[in-house]
Amino acid sequence: MSNGDIFVGEVIGTAILILFGAGVCAAVTLRYSKARASGWVVIAFGWGFGVLAGAYTAAPLSGGQLNPAVTIGIAIDTGKWGKVWVYLLGQLVGAMLGAVLAYLVYLAQFQANVRKSGTTEGTADEPVPTLGIFSTIPEIRNPVANLITEIIATVSLVLPILAFGLTKGLGESGTTVLIVSLLVVGIGLSLGGPTGYAINPARDLGPRIVHTFLPIPNKGTSDWGYAWIPVVGPLIGGALAGAIYNAAF
Amino acid sequence: MSNGDIFVGEVIGTAILILFGAGVCAAVTLRYSKARASGWVVIAFGWGFGVLAGAYTAAPLSGGQLNPAVTIGIAIDTGKWGKVWVYLLGQLVGAMLGAVLAYLVYLAQFQANVRKSGTTEGTADEPVPTLGIFSTIPEIRNPVANLITEIIATVSLVLPILAFGLTKGLGESGTTVLIVSLLVVGIGLSLGGPTGYAINPARDLGPRIVHTFLPIPNKGTSDWGYAWIPVVGPLIGGALAGAIYNAAF
Amino acid sequence: MSNGDIFVGEVIGTAILILFGAGVCAAVTLRYSKARASGWVVIAFGWGFGVLAGAYTAAPLSGGQLNPAVTIGIAIDTGKWGKVWVYLLGQLVGAMLGAVLAYLVYLAQFQANVRKSGTTEGTADEPVPTLGIFSTIPEIRNPVANLITEIIATVSLVLPILAFGLTKGLGESGTTVLIVSLLVVGIGLSLGGPTGYAINPARDLGPRIVHTFLPIPNKGTSDWGYAWIPVVGPLIGGALAGAIYNAAF
Amino acid sequence: MSNGDIFVGEVIGTAILILFGAGVCAAVTLRYSKARASGWVVIAFGWGFGVLAGAYTAAPLSGGQLNPAVTIGIAIDTGKWGKVWVYLLGQLVGAMLGAVLAYLVYLAQFQANVRKSGTTEGTADEPVPTLGIFSTIPEIRNPVANLITEIIATVSLVLPILAFGLTKGLGESGTTVLIVSLLVVGIGLSLGGPTGYAINPARDLGPRIVHTFLPIPNKGTSDWGYAWIPVVGPLIGGALAGAIYNAAF
Repeated sequence: MSNGDIFVGEVIGTAILILFGAGVCAAVTLRYSKARASGWVVIAFGWGFGVLAGAYTAAPLSGGQLNPAVTIGIAIDTGKWGKVWVYLLGQLVGAMLGAVLAYLVYLAQFQANVRKSGTTEGTADEPVPTLGIFSTIPEIRNPVANLITEIIATVSLVLPILAFGLTKGLGESGTTVLIVSLLVVGIGLSLGGPTGYAINPARDLGPRIVHTFLPIPNKGTSDWGYAWIPVVGPLIGGALAGAIYNAAF
Repeated sequence: MSNGDIFVGEVIGTAILILFGAGVCAAVTLRYSKARASGWVVIAFGWGFGVLAGAYTAAPLSGGQLNPAVTIGIAIDTGKWGKVWVYLLGQLVGAMLGAVLAYLVYLAQFQANVRKSGTTEGTADEPVPTLGIFSTIPEIRNPVANLITEIIATVSLVLPILAFGLTKGLGESGTTVLIVSLLVVGIGLSLGGPTGYAINPARDLGPRIVHTFLPIPNKGTSDWGYAWIPVVGPLIGGALAGAIYNAAF
Repeated sequence: MSNGDIFVGEVIGTAILILFGAGVCAAVTLRYSKARASGWVVIAFGWGFGVLAGAYTAAPLSGGQLNPAVTIGIAIDTGKWGKVWVYLLGQLVGAMLGAVLAYLVYLAQFQANVRKSGTTEGTADEPVPTLGIFSTIPEIRNPVANLITEIIATVSLVLPILAFGLTKGLGESGTTVLIVSLLVVGIGLSLGGPTGYAINPARDLGPRIVHTFLPIPNKGTSDWGYAWIPVVGPLIGGALAGAIYNAAF
Repeated sequence: MSNGDIFVGEVIGTAILILFGAGVCAAVTLRYSKARASGWVVIAFGWGFGVLAGAYTAAPLSGGQLNPAVTIGIAIDTGKWGKVWVYLLGQLVGAMLGAVLAYLVYLAQFQANVRKSGTTEGTADEPVPTLGIFSTIPEIRNPVANLITEIIATVSLVLPILAFGLTKGLGESGTTVLIVSLLVVGIGLSLGGPTGYAINPARDLGPRIVHTFLPIPNKGTSDWGYAWIPVVGPLIGGALAGAIYNAAF
């Protein structure tokens, strides 16, 4: 695979992943959305099928890694680091592009995120905080606990992905990506409760940059104080998964 | 494939798609339905498994495109336009047939959509507006924003479908349609919030024609003023996906 | 396949199907169930994965038809009627066995279905009607409309099943049953609202016989006046699907 | 497969299974979780996709049985008992490890499980009982009924798994584990209502041991009086499934 194909594949695939992921958070969060308040099962399947859409689309170009934690885990496993930077760059650019696309899909909803005249805080016409549509926010702010959550959740993503490659016939029948997307649904359902499961540094950092600059009414804070945890945690998790894989398999 | 096979395949497949899709909207919307008010996750999976049912059934006859945006995207990719009109005609006829079938499945529910004597507006026995069962209605009426939503959502459908064809082993194992149907579930969950995701001109136009003529009590408006957006938006999206695919892959 | 294998396969497979299907209705309906009131999405996926469990288990013995409507549809398509009676007999016996097993799984819940002393009708401690756990009940009792619903829903089941056999690679990769089970989920979500989607004469008749004789406290009526519709409707639907298939494919 | 590979595979695979399973129970149960009160569908899919993640990961090392009931069923079917003890040991150790990992993922939530000063029983700030996150609790405590539930539910798991091995093409295309994971979703939806579906002795016993020793505030009882049922029931069910399989197939 050429550097150009890898870059384009990761940009397109990660953009689709974030379009679906930020999209489903917008769908459940924003007022005037048909999916408003439709619950956690919608969030988890929306992100999972975003992986499905993005990774299958990117597969012919770049293999569809879409996640620096996956890229690091594979590099540690294979020892090949030469093209890692192309993957990471494509993933970050793609994540930012996807966040902009999700913003455009929900443009009218974001523009309607204003306080009606005469309302006070806590009433039905309050603006909705928007950062949670773009990036993760912990339920309880506790750096050590949040970091542990992200590390374990990312190991749960990357270790199975590395092992899937060994499972007889999975790659040939093209169902690997389907399995990975359902795995991501499972991680969301099971391990997403405390921090909103970044498990992907690009998925959190790219949209946070976009959130900082987008002209959304009443968008609230971009919370850069927390931003290092969903980057560092998944990177540690991906590296740890690569190490466990090399030791155990 | 002969023109006759293509036409019959697209009619049957699109009819099944719309039967499931309009059916699930009726199931969730109408009073005296066991699935009443069961939420967005039901809507999204119902439409997605309608694609599964329709596309697998049509596959041996016509390949199961069921969507003018998909047909346009494939034509732009392959440069073959000769049979496009047969696909489009079959899709429109099928969509109308499917809408009639969904109406028949929920016949008793539609007939019970009357105001009880003595009730006033806003009470529990008010008739339910029925257009949303057949065609899409935006949450916020804003032509530019609605068009953008439909364009991006349709690119998210057609670009992956074009790329899936390249993924090793997917076609041979017959799982392509399964993947596409889960992709449609994902689009519904993530991108359906603002406009109800037509992403298919036939899916919206055919049932709207049927809604105009069906003798449903208190059916409400067929809202022809909005009808061009779910036709034009998906057509632009399909064409754009074909162009992106040709440029990037 | 010998008659013995067919009979045993259909008994075991249909028993598992009904165990899951009646089980999920019990899970959602009965008091003192962890899944109580968990909604239509649970019902639809429970029945669908019952097809998955039953059909895969029966596949090596009988092919896993589990449904007289499917058996009739295949017989009309192939013209082979010699073993149809073995399939039908196995399906009815299996459906009765499955209903008994579901009753046993929820034994303590059924036994607790009693009125607490001092309660009156409509209070929280009222017994739950139990027929809906075993057999279908229409939301609106209208023989013509109910029959139309069951016919169309059964065509939507049997026509795709017949067409799946033609789809390249599907049988060889063993995923046909997975597709059929998701198809059944879709039928439940989309077309189950009016009548509770029997779409299978054995599925309704077998458990209704069992319900008539089981010693369940406050079980309510077995509603034999309605029983012909979920038998006749699916049989017509299966035959119609076979005829459409022969004409169109 | 060497004893070492089997042991490591079962430890890793069962740990991932319980991490997801206990994780999803924590997600739905604990206060300050984004998935709080998201319902039974989330529980059932979380456990099912835990099977997916664990079994695919373990497959290259041990085949991914992850459940003493499955191991017993296979041993009765094949007559090979020599390595059964390695599987069982790995499964128990893995289940304990997984429970600790789930505790760590929800560490901040568990630590916040305290009574606010001034609150009384039954108010919103009451601690949440935590055993249900780790092990099963029956809705109605009735040893005979609870045992019957676990036996039938486990037969419904192990008999299909044994039969899947016979289904043409399933093993070669690597989709067996996907089917089994959806089967587990189905068992949860349909048969989990009365006892919370252990259907796996290691899944219940390992986390119960861990719950006994973990320093969780207000963790409540570990309920050892019930602990034999989710061990004995599934073992009987697994053996019964092996016997039915040998007799019928």
